[in-house]
Amino acid sequence: MTAAAPFDQLFSPRSIAIIGASQDLVRISGQPIRALKAAGFKGAIHLVNPKYPSLHGQPCFPTAAAIGKPVDLAIVAVPAAGVSEAIRDCGRAGIRFAIVLTAGFREAGGAGVALEAELKLVALQSDVRVIGPNCQGMVAVPARVWACFGSISEEIDLKQGEVSCVFQSGGFGYAIVNLAELQGVGFRTCISSGNETDMTSPEILEAFLDDPGTKIAFAVMEGTPDARRLLDVGRKALATGKPVLIWKSANTEAGAKAAASHTANMTGRADLFRAAFRQSGLIEVDDVEPIVDIAKLVAQGRRAKGRRIGALSISGGSGIVFADRCVREGLELPPFSPKTVAALKKIIPAFGSSENPADVTAGVFNDMSLLTKTLDIVLEDDGIDQLTIMLASIPGLPAERAAEAIAAAAAKTDKPVHVAWSGRRSKSEAAYRILEAAEVPVIPTPVRLAQAAAILARFEADRARLGSRKAPVVAARKAYELPPGAVTLSEAESKAVLAAHGIAVTREATVGAGESYIGKLARLSPPFAVKVLSRDIAHKSDVGGVKLGVRDVIGVEAAAIEVITNARRAKPDAKIDGVLVSEMASGLEVLIGVINDPAFGPTVALGLGGVLTEVLRDVTYRIAPFGLEDARDMIAELKGARLFAGYRGQPAADTGALARMLVDVSAMAMALKDRLAEMDINPVFVGPKGCVAADALVVLK
Amino acid sequence: MTAAAPFDQLFSPRSIAIIGASQDLVRISGQPIRALKAAGFKGAIHLVNPKYPSLHGQPCFPTAAAIGKPVDLAIVAVPAAGVSEAIRDCGRAGIRFAIVLTAGFREAGGAGVALEAELKLVALQSDVRVIGPNCQGMVAVPARVWACFGSISEEIDLKQGEVSCVFQSGGFGYAIVNLAELQGVGFRTCISSGNETDMTSPEILEAFLDDPGTKIAFAVMEGTPDARRLLDVGRKALATGKPVLIWKSANTEAGAKAAASHTANMTGRADLFRAAFRQSGLIEVDDVEPIVDIAKLVAQGRRAKGRRIGALSISGGSGIVFADRCVREGLELPPFSPKTVAALKKIIPAFGSSENPADVTAGVFNDMSLLTKTLDIVLEDDGIDQLTIMLASIPGLPAERAAEAIAAAAAKTDKPVHVAWSGRRSKSEAAYRILEAAEVPVIPTPVRLAQAAAILARFEADRARLGSRKAPVVAARKAYELPPGAVTLSEAESKAVLAAHGIAVTREATVGAGESYIGKLARLSPPFAVKVLSRDIAHKSDVGGVKLGVRDVIGVEAAAIEVITNARRAKPDAKIDGVLVSEMASGLEVLIGVINDPAFGPTVALGLGGVLTEVLRDVTYRIAPFGLEDARDMIAELKGARLFAGYRGQPAADTGALARMLVDVSAMAMALKDRLAEMDINPVFVGPKGCVAADALVVLK
Repeated sequence: MTAAAPFDQLFSPRSIAIIGASQDLVRISGQPIRALKAAGFKGAIHLVNPKYPSLHGQPCFPTAAAIGKPVDLAIVAVPAAGVSEAIRDCGRAGIRFAIVLTAGFREAGGAGVALEAELKLVALQSDVRVIGPNCQGMVAVPARVWACFGSISEEIDLKQGEVSCVFQSGGFGYAIVNLAELQGVGFRTCISSGNETDMTSPEILEAFLDDPGTKIAFAVMEGTPDARRLLDVGRKALATGKPVLIWKSANTEAGAKAAASHTANMTGRADLFRAAFRQSGLIEVDDVEPIVDIAKLVAQGRRAKGRRIGALSISGGSGIVFADRCVREGLELPPFSPKTVAALKKIIPAFGSSENPADVTAGVFNDMSLLTKTLDIVLEDDGIDQLTIMLASIPGLPAERAAEAIAAAAAKTDKPVHVAWSGRRSKSEAAYRILEAAEVPVIPTPVRLAQAAAILARFEADRARLGSRKAPVVAARKAYELPPGAVTLSEAESKAVLAAHGIAVTREATVGAGESYIGKLARLSPPFAVKVLSRDIAHKSDVGGVKLGVRDVIGVEAAAIEVITNARRAKPDAKIDGVLVSEMASGLEVLIGVINDPAFGPTVALGLGGVLTEVLRDVTYRIAPFGLEDARDMIAELKGARLFAGYRGQPAADTGALARMLVDVSAMAMALKDRLAEMDINPVFVGPKGCVAADALVVLK
Repeated sequence: MTAAAPFDQLFSPRSIAIIGASQDLVRISGQPIRALKAAGFKGAIHLVNPKYPSLHGQPCFPTAAAIGKPVDLAIVAVPAAGVSEAIRDCGRAGIRFAIVLTAGFREAGGAGVALEAELKLVALQSDVRVIGPNCQGMVAVPARVWACFGSISEEIDLKQGEVSCVFQSGGFGYAIVNLAELQGVGFRTCISSGNETDMTSPEILEAFLDDPGTKIAFAVMEGTPDARRLLDVGRKALATGKPVLIWKSANTEAGAKAAASHTANMTGRADLFRAAFRQSGLIEVDDVEPIVDIAKLVAQGRRAKGRRIGALSISGGSGIVFADRCVREGLELPPFSPKTVAALKKIIPAFGSSENPADVTAGVFNDMSLLTKTLDIVLEDDGIDQLTIMLASIPGLPAERAAEAIAAAAAKTDKPVHVAWSGRRSKSEAAYRILEAAEVPVIPTPVRLAQAAAILARFEADRARLGSRKAPVVAARKAYELPPGAVTLSEAESKAVLAAHGIAVTREATVGAGESYIGKLARLSPPFAVKVLSRDIAHKSDVGGVKLGVRDVIGVEAAAIEVITNARRAKPDAKIDGVLVSEMASGLEVLIGVINDPAFGPTVALGLGGVLTEVLRDVTYRIAPFGLEDARDMIAELKGARLFAGYRGQPAADTGALARMLVDVSAMAMALKDRLAEMDINPVFVGPKGCVAADALVVLK
């Protein structure tokens, strides 16, 4: 196999072959021909179809290999059964990228599943990177590439901009593109990725981030087996400063069921996706509006230095809802400096407001210099990082004057300046043009503006906060052996694995049949927990296999008889290896779990024990491995995190020790990733000094 | 005073006087003259201004009283200092409604506060109902009344419809009207209510509900001292079946601060507003889009009979996000009936979906009968109550064909049928017109449609669930006396008040100095709680004034000495009345509180005790008084509600007894509403049978 194909060939092909080109320009296999020509694609368009010697007034080739000239991209629209052969043909022709529009693969079930498996293999063998199948194709605006079918093939006037996007559903994705463009967003590359047999959304997002012309990217995805790669996407987004928005759908049972018959992408667990987003600085969205609004703000090309936002309105009501939403979303509306307030008080009427958010009042209708002066004063205040002006829905000439004032003010600063305004375009064309020329973003409502500004402020904060974090190197630990096969380890065996990875477990002893309790317990201090020991009994409490608070050796002997008898009665076939006698631990109860997720791989869960976990499902996740900062974030984001500070006279819990344990668990999970099915460390006691695993269950696969 | 003025005079006046009419039509006092004429108001317009004998080519009167003809409505635009006199003049002229545009009242502080107090009194004395001051006026579309200034005074083409609205901020409110109308919403009466010195938002909302032409109403409010009346609004909304949406702003400190300098309306506690909405079927919104979308769905005039929604798309991706949001918002996507699925399977391709949400695929581009047939099949399924069709962004002729199919299908059913579609209007005018003519609502995104449909389904469910609930009659209880003044009662006194209202308290005895413990404790069973008794010590635990689990009389005596000594040391000036010896109670710990809120009056809080309250602020509210159903709702909506069912082997708690206690507390709160500052019953122990107040604190005012 040769070096990785450069994505430039895909985004900006010099020549395109259409394999399965149709005589009928209305058919799916004809639409790309029409669209490429209509859009003004400047490169060569080669038609491939063994049925015709020529087509649409140009030669038509029997195979791609027969073209005899370099081709950068193929559009494949032959029936499903012929797609693999078409890809082989591309390989022979040296075409490195193919977009397969054809449907009827795994999403159709039956024979489609085998066809898709074959396609995956053939793509690899032929060294052809494949987008699709079951997709609607790509639009690359700068190169005028409309390699697609459906409504988008007719939208050849799509505004060019700096947004690139990928979506698994072509119809829905291009509807989003359409709706966003109607609201003023310009696009660069749009890819409908369909079944993602070869190229996945995360890989395509990375390619967008590498593209210098893309300033912001978004994805709409039902799921992906390539989910772990999202962490790399997020890290690259932070490093490049290009926000990546992800709309993850199919998060409910109903949604996942619908997705199964759609692109059949693995939908995965919504909570893990959310954890991965949080962990890597990706931005979750769940409708079109936030995409539009964030894209508009990014297009201005200015970055707020911090969370402090200044606001001024011509209508106090806007300022109030704006302030509400800013605060709720984590922005700050700091007081203006005394100098600013004093200057504003001289010009703003008493029934307005000279505080942040300022209300210059409808007085601007009589005298627009009120706005001009206020803008200058507020933009000079060092205490604000960006400025929002709320114009309600003023129309006509007042709007035009206001736009001029804002454009002039924006030109004098490098702080982001944006406008919440819903004036009718039909009555305010001039004002819109002035703001567009000045590159001042206009968002229709103060609420939407506050949300978008807050999201971008969080992204900037994440760059500082997460940008420098490195996934830790997973160091080798003390050697140990695991039994082969899908075995559930006993508590003692499970704890031995933990201990080998440096994780503190309760001091304890196993006592087999006939062994002396006195000798085994010599080095332990009461009170003890006495638990039946058996690989066959995963949930010891459920069978009466646990006695807590046992005070001495005689008690231990009695307890051992009791737990073994209980276990035998409940599970007659279980092989019982004796009992485990542990020192009792105390402290705040938490649980740590490891999931080996099919999409994300090893993932660590942290939950508060007792009432909070069982009643509130207060659990948080991080994809393993991770370092101390992430571990601390996990602890802090539990709903009941306040408990760690000490509650009703309890001492504060040692969160540092817990964070270190989480890091060690994440490293252990990575080390065992090929063997681990799941792991439960429950409870872990977090004391005032140190924390210790009091029970553990390792399930191998 | 005469009978209440009929709101018809306000919404549909036959004649209007403009008091303070200006020569200059650009000024605030001139704009309504221009707007009324431009809008084509058919009634008489009388100008009042002592400066001019005639104005704008018509007679001008020195006073309203001098007009000498019946006038239904006055618009007052004289300077703030003259407003009260203008209202007196209205009274003398027999004008029953006045809209005061003038600003400079309490929102301006200083002399404005006194001016507003005077205006309130004058309005009452003159029998004139006042809207404003500090407002932008009213638009009543059917009667062509543009009694307003600002941008809205130029929007005389506002589409007529069935939506009425009231907002405290004129600029912001009319921007919402504008934005909603741009998206296809038609309006009836819009009122900017400003400072609400006389007429408040809740009163105006009630008037809207009484107006036969209004089918849906919304309010945007910063707050109101008339908040309790919102419960009546909600009940009337449920009774009439007209949804009322409320956007309550100023919910954060920053927002409330901004509101103070705006209309200076009392902002109040957001959590209590939310409780009132939940309690009475009002619908909370927090941006313009939900208002638009719900209004569009209501305009169709069809009601879904239940929560079961059917969906079909031409793009599977839309169906997935739609399903996600429906489920999250409480709608059901039930499976289609086997008959429906069988029929669909015959026409929908294998790579589509014949399950709910159905995906008919982009195959409709080739053959629109696919959609027609699918619509007929799905609408015949008895298992669905309403149907959403998702058209992504298809343009042109396919859109037109799809619109025809949908219009035809909608005409054959009385189930709600609506469309999620973002086709460009410029390329799809015909399709939009077809759907508009068929009264099929179009919402741009599936997510927004799901949200709006879910909100309406909840409203219908609330009509069934809450509609029949009556606020209970507060019965008189055993007589008792309260000390005068702002006194904090001791625990024993507080519990005596509870007991008088039939609320179970722990069995207990007070023991004063020198009294015999043996005699007092004879009828009580150990263990005991021993607590210092003093009106001056509200928080007994904080001063070491409580000993729990005391086993016998000797222990009680020792504990009494200890708690009194501790209390004396901590609060040397406290008057100590002895100790209270209570039986210990057990069960699940909850707390019940009463707030006497300035806006809502007596309000009951319920929280889970212990960790859950302190860590999670798991508290819910209801405005008092309320009955058993509301009390049960309160219990069920606690985040930790699962605990009542019994946790880790605990018996289930007697929620019936707790509900009865909540109802009794609400009745007590109403009975004491003129004396009660606040009340805390904490803890209440909810046992397997019955529940009991173990501590209580009544603060009088």
